[in-house]
Amino acid sequence: MSDRYQKGIEKLKIMNPDSYKTLEENLEDIAPDMARYVAEFAYGDIYSRSELDMKTRELVTIASITTLGSAQPQLKSHIHGALNVGCTPEEIIEVIMQMAVYAGFPKALNGIFSAKEVFEERDEKIGNSE
Amino acid sequence: MSDRYQKGIEKLKIMNPDSYKTLEENLEDIAPDMARYVAEFAYGDIYSRSELDMKTRELVTIASITTLGSAQPQLKSHIHGALNVGCTPEEIIEVIMQMAVYAGFPKALNGIFSAKEVFEERDEKIGNSE
Amino acid sequence: MSDRYQKGIEKLKIMNPDSYKTLEENLEDIAPDMARYVAEFAYGDIYSRSELDMKTRELVTIASITTLGSAQPQLKSHIHGALNVGCTPEEIIEVIMQMAVYAGFPKALNGIFSAKEVFEERDEKIGNSE
Amino acid sequence: MSDRYQKGIEKLKIMNPDSYKTLEENLEDIAPDMARYVAEFAYGDIYSRSELDMKTRELVTIASITTLGSAQPQLKSHIHGALNVGCTPEEIIEVIMQMAVYAGFPKALNGIFSAKEVFEERDEKIGNSE
Amino acid sequence: MSDRYQKGIEKLKIMNPDSYKTLEENLEDIAPDMARYVAEFAYGDIYSRSELDMKTRELVTIASITTLGSAQPQLKSHIHGALNVGCTPEEIIEVIMQMAVYAGFPKALNGIFSAKEVFEERDEKIGNSE
Amino acid sequence: MSDRYQKGIEKLKIMNPDSYKTLEENLEDIAPDMARYVAEFAYGDIYSRSELDMKTRELVTIASITTLGSAQPQLKSHIHGALNVGCTPEEIIEVIMQMAVYAGFPKALNGIFSAKEVFEERDEKIGNSE
Repeated sequence: MSDRYQKGIEKLKIMNPDSYKTLEENLEDIAPDMARYVAEFAYGDIYSRSELDMKTRELVTIASITTLGSAQPQLKSHIHGALNVGCTPEEIIEVIMQMAVYAGFPKALNGIFSAKEVFEERDEKIGNSE
Repeated sequence: MSDRYQKGIEKLKIMNPDSYKTLEENLEDIAPDMARYVAEFAYGDIYSRSELDMKTRELVTIASITTLGSAQPQLKSHIHGALNVGCTPEEIIEVIMQMAVYAGFPKALNGIFSAKEVFEERDEKIGNSE
Repeated sequence: MSDRYQKGIEKLKIMNPDSYKTLEENLEDIAPDMARYVAEFAYGDIYSRSELDMKTRELVTIASITTLGSAQPQLKSHIHGALNVGCTPEEIIEVIMQMAVYAGFPKALNGIFSAKEVFEERDEKIGNSE
Repeated sequence: MSDRYQKGIEKLKIMNPDSYKTLEENLEDIAPDMARYVAEFAYGDIYSRSELDMKTRELVTIASITTLGSAQPQLKSHIHGALNVGCTPEEIIEVIMQMAVYAGFPKALNGIFSAKEVFEERDEKIGNSE
Repeated sequence: MSDRYQKGIEKLKIMNPDSYKTLEENLEDIAPDMARYVAEFAYGDIYSRSELDMKTRELVTIASITTLGSAQPQLKSHIHGALNVGCTPEEIIEVIMQMAVYAGFPKALNGIFSAKEVFEERDEKIGNSE
Repeated sequence: MSDRYQKGIEKLKIMNPDSYKTLEENLEDIAPDMARYVAEFAYGDIYSRSELDMKTRELVTIASITTLGSAQPQLKSHIHGALNVGCTPEEIIEVIMQMAVYAGFPKALNGIFSAKEVFEERDEKIGNSE
């Protein structure tokens, strides 16, 4: 395994070990290299760079996937990631709400509903997250 | 003028007074209410909320507009905004680069080229921005 | 509550009171301000303007959300709205079909299937809608 | 030439003869069938259907292309078309403004700027369009 | 029935007779002309042209729908079509993986998961597809 | 430099050495790592895989970028790439025309116009490309 893979897996341990494990399992019979590229490129190359802290990285990713509008599993996975690195539910909701201005209300609303599902799974409460 | 408008204009004075002035002028003969909605809703309602600091608000907006891929004037305007509230060129480039993972390389590359134009207009230099 | 909110709620009473009630309930624990912005900005500011009649407003919204392609709950909500303000099922289908030219066949087809679900819920029949 | 082509060309004579002529010329050396498909499918099949009047067809198209965000030449062509079939500049601007709610402010703003260019080319004035 | 319809149906018999039958049934009460346009325009006009072989046509369609990101039923239908005209599961997965570069990882991953569902329905196995 | 970078550069020498050189120069002062990621990930990891031939890889990329609709510089770069690896202008136009079905006519038309610019730069002629 490459250094980039190891670096990516280290990041993923902090950010979202469960999502990556699920991804790896879902891809192992069909496109195992794709899981490897996620670890190597997304986490080993990009998330491992020092120019941004982990919380900012997850919030801008949430903004991007909310704007895509059609990738709810990945949005939920990164909402988990954001909570794992210390973002509050309030911050996450706030980023998604702001997307109403740039990506339109429908995508922002569907983003909020994805966040709601994640918070319920984790029993996170808005206004109660410290 | 509404309170929300006043609040929005206050925010805009800090974030991006020049862009808003240009917007107002461009819209005055054709859709002046649209400029007002930008001040009232985007800045008076959303950017005035206390849950996120200004730098994070600009960075997630840059992520969103890079992901849209087709709104280069607004992307450039928010890159100006991000610099105005204290983001470094490095942080801005880093957010846009991360979009390669979520929105694909073409949109990330075009986002970087928009940033390059803004930095050149302002004579900002990467690695030299303090 | 603001005038804009009252004006928005008046519009919503005509256009789509059930959808808004559901939206408000879904958002109340997580992002109640978002429901308020929908009433204030979308309905109080935009839909309350006099330049377009309600039917045209709903048809252009259906065109836009079909083009987004990924916001089926909002599409269904506006198909309800269109029927509530007097659009016929035939007009709604016709707008969505036309989107094949501009947004491609997959989005148009998925839009038609959303309309089909709404018509079945309401027992509306194509060619039988008077 | 097929019936559908003739029917499409008849529609185009009313809606937008200049844009189609330009399209045909631009495509003649590279993809002449593509111009034929526009006449046959878009205008002969879709716009010739009786379920919607021409004005509504142009307004929903403007909504869709504004939402795409990246097809300014086609947006301008349909703003011409809308004016040709009797839509007022005010109605056109109103549809594009409404897109702020569904497609976000950047796409709506860029749509307005495209409309502004068209109105200037034709010397149409907002509030002065009768 | 037009020649184009007949030609389209001939293509569909080779490419994807089951998907088209389902589409026709789903549309018959609501938008039967839409099914006819799919046969006439997509298959009779476009897929019947001689410039590209059937396998390439299905692979570029899979690339496009993966990039749209929000039309999973149509993506699955064209993955069936690609297999029907002789593409291997490996080729299909490879096209979708390449989309990570152009459309981003979330859309590529969701495309792979759609392919996985299709392969499981048909009991196709990666590395075992001859 | 990594093996993946070397492998990517080897591919780029065959596919599109000029575009990559330009990209590298455009990024060198602002985001040099981004050029490296293009060589390493897009060309070293993805395009170097053996499951698809180079021509198919370029055609599916053209399908994807046409569908994005907003990345004309990258579309033109890959039209050059497609010609460099032996695709004919007719095949390229055919792929872009097919996108009318999936991504809508505006994006297909703008894709054709980008191809036209590339063919003119290279003095390629449709029907004259052998």
